[in-house]
Amino acid sequence: MLNDLKKLFTASELLNGNFGVEREGLRVDKQGNLSLKPHPKQFGEKMKNPYITTDFSESQLELITPIFNKTDKLYNFLSVLYDIVALELEGEYIWPQSMPCIIPSDNKIPIARFDKTPTGEEAKKYRENLLKKYGPKKQLISGIHYNFSFSEEMTKRLYEDEDNDLDYKTFKDNLYLKVARNYLRYRWLLIYLLGGTGLIHESYAKECVKKLKEVTNNVFSNDGALSYRNSECGYTNNTDLFADYNSTKGYVESLKSFINDKIIESHKEFYSSIRLKAKDNNNFFESLINDGIDYLEYRSIDINPFDKAGISLDDLNFLQIFNLFLLVADESSYDKWQEEALENQKLIARYGHNDIMLKKDGKEISKEIWALDILEDIKNINKKLNLGKEEILFKMIEKIRDYKCTYSYKIIEKVKSEGYIDAHLNLAENYKKDAYNKRFKLEGYEDLELSTQLLIKESIKRGIKVEISDRSENFIKLKKGNRVEHVKQATKTSKDNYVTVLIMENKVVTKKILDDNCLNVPKGYEFNSFNDAVLNCTNFSNKPIVIKPKSTNFGIGISIFPDGVEKSDLIKAIEIAFKYDNTVLVEEFIKGKEYRFLVINDKVVGILHRVPANVIGDGVKSIKELVEIKNQSSLRGKGYKTPLEKINLDENAELFLKQNNLNFDYIPNKGEIVYLRENSNISTGGDSIDYTDIIPKRFKTVAIEATKAVGAKICGVDMMIEDYQDENSSYGIIELNFNPAIHIHSYPYKGIERNIAKEILNLLEFI
Amino acid sequence: MLNDLKKLFTASELLNGNFGVEREGLRVDKQGNLSLKPHPKQFGEKMKNPYITTDFSESQLELITPIFNKTDKLYNFLSVLYDIVALELEGEYIWPQSMPCIIPSDNKIPIARFDKTPTGEEAKKYRENLLKKYGPKKQLISGIHYNFSFSEEMTKRLYEDEDNDLDYKTFKDNLYLKVARNYLRYRWLLIYLLGGTGLIHESYAKECVKKLKEVTNNVFSNDGALSYRNSECGYTNNTDLFADYNSTKGYVESLKSFINDKIIESHKEFYSSIRLKAKDNNNFFESLINDGIDYLEYRSIDINPFDKAGISLDDLNFLQIFNLFLLVADESSYDKWQEEALENQKLIARYGHNDIMLKKDGKEISKEIWALDILEDIKNINKKLNLGKEEILFKMIEKIRDYKCTYSYKIIEKVKSEGYIDAHLNLAENYKKDAYNKRFKLEGYEDLELSTQLLIKESIKRGIKVEISDRSENFIKLKKGNRVEHVKQATKTSKDNYVTVLIMENKVVTKKILDDNCLNVPKGYEFNSFNDAVLNCTNFSNKPIVIKPKSTNFGIGISIFPDGVEKSDLIKAIEIAFKYDNTVLVEEFIKGKEYRFLVINDKVVGILHRVPANVIGDGVKSIKELVEIKNQSSLRGKGYKTPLEKINLDENAELFLKQNNLNFDYIPNKGEIVYLRENSNISTGGDSIDYTDIIPKRFKTVAIEATKAVGAKICGVDMMIEDYQDENSSYGIIELNFNPAIHIHSYPYKGIERNIAKEILNLLEFI
Repeated sequence: MLNDLKKLFTASELLNGNFGVEREGLRVDKQGNLSLKPHPKQFGEKMKNPYITTDFSESQLELITPIFNKTDKLYNFLSVLYDIVALELEGEYIWPQSMPCIIPSDNKIPIARFDKTPTGEEAKKYRENLLKKYGPKKQLISGIHYNFSFSEEMTKRLYEDEDNDLDYKTFKDNLYLKVARNYLRYRWLLIYLLGGTGLIHESYAKECVKKLKEVTNNVFSNDGALSYRNSECGYTNNTDLFADYNSTKGYVESLKSFINDKIIESHKEFYSSIRLKAKDNNNFFESLINDGIDYLEYRSIDINPFDKAGISLDDLNFLQIFNLFLLVADESSYDKWQEEALENQKLIARYGHNDIMLKKDGKEISKEIWALDILEDIKNINKKLNLGKEEILFKMIEKIRDYKCTYSYKIIEKVKSEGYIDAHLNLAENYKKDAYNKRFKLEGYEDLELSTQLLIKESIKRGIKVEISDRSENFIKLKKGNRVEHVKQATKTSKDNYVTVLIMENKVVTKKILDDNCLNVPKGYEFNSFNDAVLNCTNFSNKPIVIKPKSTNFGIGISIFPDGVEKSDLIKAIEIAFKYDNTVLVEEFIKGKEYRFLVINDKVVGILHRVPANVIGDGVKSIKELVEIKNQSSLRGKGYKTPLEKINLDENAELFLKQNNLNFDYIPNKGEIVYLRENSNISTGGDSIDYTDIIPKRFKTVAIEATKAVGAKICGVDMMIEDYQDENSSYGIIELNFNPAIHIHSYPYKGIERNIAKEILNLLEFI
Repeated sequence: MLNDLKKLFTASELLNGNFGVEREGLRVDKQGNLSLKPHPKQFGEKMKNPYITTDFSESQLELITPIFNKTDKLYNFLSVLYDIVALELEGEYIWPQSMPCIIPSDNKIPIARFDKTPTGEEAKKYRENLLKKYGPKKQLISGIHYNFSFSEEMTKRLYEDEDNDLDYKTFKDNLYLKVARNYLRYRWLLIYLLGGTGLIHESYAKECVKKLKEVTNNVFSNDGALSYRNSECGYTNNTDLFADYNSTKGYVESLKSFINDKIIESHKEFYSSIRLKAKDNNNFFESLINDGIDYLEYRSIDINPFDKAGISLDDLNFLQIFNLFLLVADESSYDKWQEEALENQKLIARYGHNDIMLKKDGKEISKEIWALDILEDIKNINKKLNLGKEEILFKMIEKIRDYKCTYSYKIIEKVKSEGYIDAHLNLAENYKKDAYNKRFKLEGYEDLELSTQLLIKESIKRGIKVEISDRSENFIKLKKGNRVEHVKQATKTSKDNYVTVLIMENKVVTKKILDDNCLNVPKGYEFNSFNDAVLNCTNFSNKPIVIKPKSTNFGIGISIFPDGVEKSDLIKAIEIAFKYDNTVLVEEFIKGKEYRFLVINDKVVGILHRVPANVIGDGVKSIKELVEIKNQSSLRGKGYKTPLEKINLDENAELFLKQNNLNFDYIPNKGEIVYLRENSNISTGGDSIDYTDIIPKRFKTVAIEATKAVGAKICGVDMMIEDYQDENSSYGIIELNFNPAIHIHSYPYKGIERNIAKEILNLLEFI
């Protein structure tokens, strides 16, 4: 088999596959008690959110990733899901540990609530039955469920290569059945390497706690314990159940017999450490027989307390090669293999940190020797197939050689020093802080525009399925139920009609229409030739004017003369403007400050004003030091990856200060504002300041009317207002923008952070 | 006054003004009989079409221009209106003469029909009263009504310059009243210069005909007659009416007294050769008093049979300077000036070709001397104000010196040789031919794209008001009643939403969506780097493929290999594609021919196929000669001003023929098709062939489904079909276009001309 793989595939083809994770996690309050609050309504109806839902308990979050073909994408998404959820939990954390936090008495543990729909009632009834049978405490154990299949391309090519009489489905089934059997055989190693549940809080099930000794305050264990979740005290059936893994038919029949014998109620209650999964899990038995095995679900993996995602990227990468090992490894004919494997699992779970002997085909073998044997095989696979996982394998070998390198040991040590609750709460708090610092972006999607990252983030939160249609173009597809919307660059949507956008793109037409609607726009003239412009502009020379190319943006080619201009400079400005467009506008300059009004669906959802890069003195620190401190904000970065840019103390800043007889070492007085350049662009370290609640209603009405005049649903209205505090102040609409950025309002330097993504999703009728 | 004008204004300011024309014209059949058919329904409800309506009779068209500030624009629009109307008249012409065609007995002359609305009933009743009073025949006389005012800028500056106690309104009124009085005094000259109604057909009013002698078959005149329309036999009140032109108040009072005396029914029945016009002509008297004179209407101008527009551009230009003359010319204090002026008019109208004596301030003066005096004054004005109208004035002087140069003389001569009916029908037929030859464009708007010209043309026809918002961008505003639509480049409308357009713009996203909707698209791969593309494309080398940049259009950077490609050429093609985009698509090549399906509002309104430039032999002519003949089609031009381009026998064509051992002198056999180049672009002389009724329904359904899949309302679907005659043939959708040209379907080389503009206006709900 290994030779076949070598022959047929490149390394990258072998590492391609379908990977998904379900990660459970309890909501806890700041004291480490199980939350009794309902599942946050921000996540919508829990049965309709494909990413964020609950498991057994109302307080037991379940985070579900889509299927990814690469592990790094999977890992990113899992981290992102964590961030999204963590930030919505007010005064709560996600408990970063498979074994529960402080849990109340059985009758106070809340079962997940559902709508009074038939499926909702069914879900509720199922949980009530589990509650009766297993008690609520064991149901609170959380874990990682790892779903995987090889790429279809890979199984197909293997099939085509092999000379056999089987049909493709049976061939593929046999392949996965082998992996499943080997998974059962070797799962003990996975539990050793990834396990992290060697402690039990005293509030957990009495019958477990009482057999153990107190390690530190209120927390119990036994010598060498590694994963109670995978022990008898974990989440297991009341009887050891051995299904038939020789064929899908055998598997189905064995599960059916467990049900017939009333040991379990349905296939969902089969708490095996691996499950065969069907294409249609609602008609599980039929689908498994007819369509074959769709993927495998590994259920032995504990939550890694040391990783926000609950499982590290290294471990996900290790699982990739482990899967190939399971595919390749020869099987013995030893008949009691399932019982033996379960015994090995239990031994590792309870005494894994000790030097113990396991059983291999009925014969004793030292844990360490066997583990190193297996890892040696895996190393060979890695080498032969060029998979490039040497470093990860070294780490795994290290864990075998020294149990102190395991997560399970490390968390015990941490608990010993900080206490069970605090140790885990401290981790959770750090993860939440990290989420907050990254709140303006979507990890793993940094190549997308910030606005698009925010829209995706909000979509995920609300359970809207996101598909990236064209990454480089920031083109995404959103889907919930039957509702599908395509969105480009966050604010280009189906809600705006094409000609509305074309109007906004055209300054002349925009002005005509605004003027027709009795809205103030700077008076102006349009010229198609340099000579025309020069001939007709001489009488402007003593008026405040702006000269700009008709269609460019971002201030390119624009000259502003607030106090009039000499003829020679005027001509120069016209010359510059004509470099960027065949048509040049000469416009009245309106006094005041510029504000960006963001109008969505006839509502002003944000108003922003920008000021040039600056520092405010404290009477002690120099400009240089103040800039350094200001630059530390997580909102400031480099290259548009953050809502604000770091202030750069460059030559321009030096020159600007010099004009005011200042330099970088100047120590501003307390409260003194020192500007570091003229322009207020965010790209040169400018600040964005939220004015949404400050600007008088009148100007908001103007912005809405302007938006309606061109028929827009999403519009950035740039308005000059002479004195924003006076609602009778004169104003002028400078420009309407059909693709306004949303991140600037979502994460301003100063003022309230506005959830604009939500407004867009509301506009798109994702309710 | 002249000095004031010189001081205050440039020539171009003086020649600016507000100019509009109403032009009447009878519909006649091919024998010259008054049409008894109803007003064509293509023009919509006649009371709601601001451009095309009827006057007294159902068969009397009235073409109305908007107000223009330049005479050339006015002239163009008038010509265009003529073309639009002429082409819609099946088997009919517009009679190019003020005096009527062959008219039936009084009771058979159809009065204009109106809807049974209050305004409709009023219009009908008004006409019935006129019929009783004047008989129907005189009402059929048609003419030019010339509306004009100086630019507001001009009257304002004159007012500001003058040191007077008057308010602006009175000042302006006085100014126009002077022009009106002088118009009355000097109108005889205008009648002489522009008149063209020296003949009356025998079917016209008996009482007129019987006094005259037969000039040629059935047509009557008297010696020296010039303008019967301006004579007693013309369209005059039953009594000579002299209104007060000293003030608006006096004018209003005199009109009211005529009404009181039951001489006329309303101000609209005051058939003076000039009218003062108010801002609100529905509340005429009030508005004239309160708002002042808005503009003047000159009513003495006969239709010029020799100009399609009914008035020549020269004459419109002459009127501009004539208006200034009327403003400048001193007035005498002679009190019987109105009676004298009427007498002069009648003399000129009846005997203008003879050497006659007119009266000036009660004294006799020869027509020629006075005319030359006036024209000398006008020449001085022209010179002093630099108006540049010398040549026009020379022509006018020539007409005075030699009456044979007048329109009136020329049309009499033409009638003498061809007969009254045929002479005019021949002119009308030529005008209609000219309209047909220009049917694909809008004269005077050739700077716009053909598609936009067609949309404007159709809008005018249907009475939708058109405003050009941005000429260089082909941005127009359409308005009818309360309905307003902005349209860019004819097919960018409010009916398509923005994201739909962005989807179509993005080949990758388009393909994904079409594929999701089970529509055939060429399978393909997207590459973001040259190396990636080269690495992954080697296994394509024996398949038919297309390599193209992701976002460019017009075939730029695209390489097609229908029979596979060698690796080196493949690499070259990838290199080329990457020059135009950062992303390159490598796609399966679909066999067959490409068809453009134009889908509007879920309907296929046109299907087009293009073939390379070619000629079809007749066994006699050489390729060179055949091309020359083919190039004569009015549809072929140069530089995209026409639906097709002229074939250019250039080096490429020579080379292409050489490869087939042919040259330009080769004489193809009868029916032999010789292609002159490989590519089928229209820009290199290719032919467009309409397949709309030929392509099986199945492919139309596919095109509609593709359009629906992306949510488009206007879409050009480019489809490859292996065999269009076989509805089971394989197909592939190559591209969706959001800005499809409409002129190619409207005016194909071969096949039915499709009125696509109509479909767009229907989509835009202009019903």
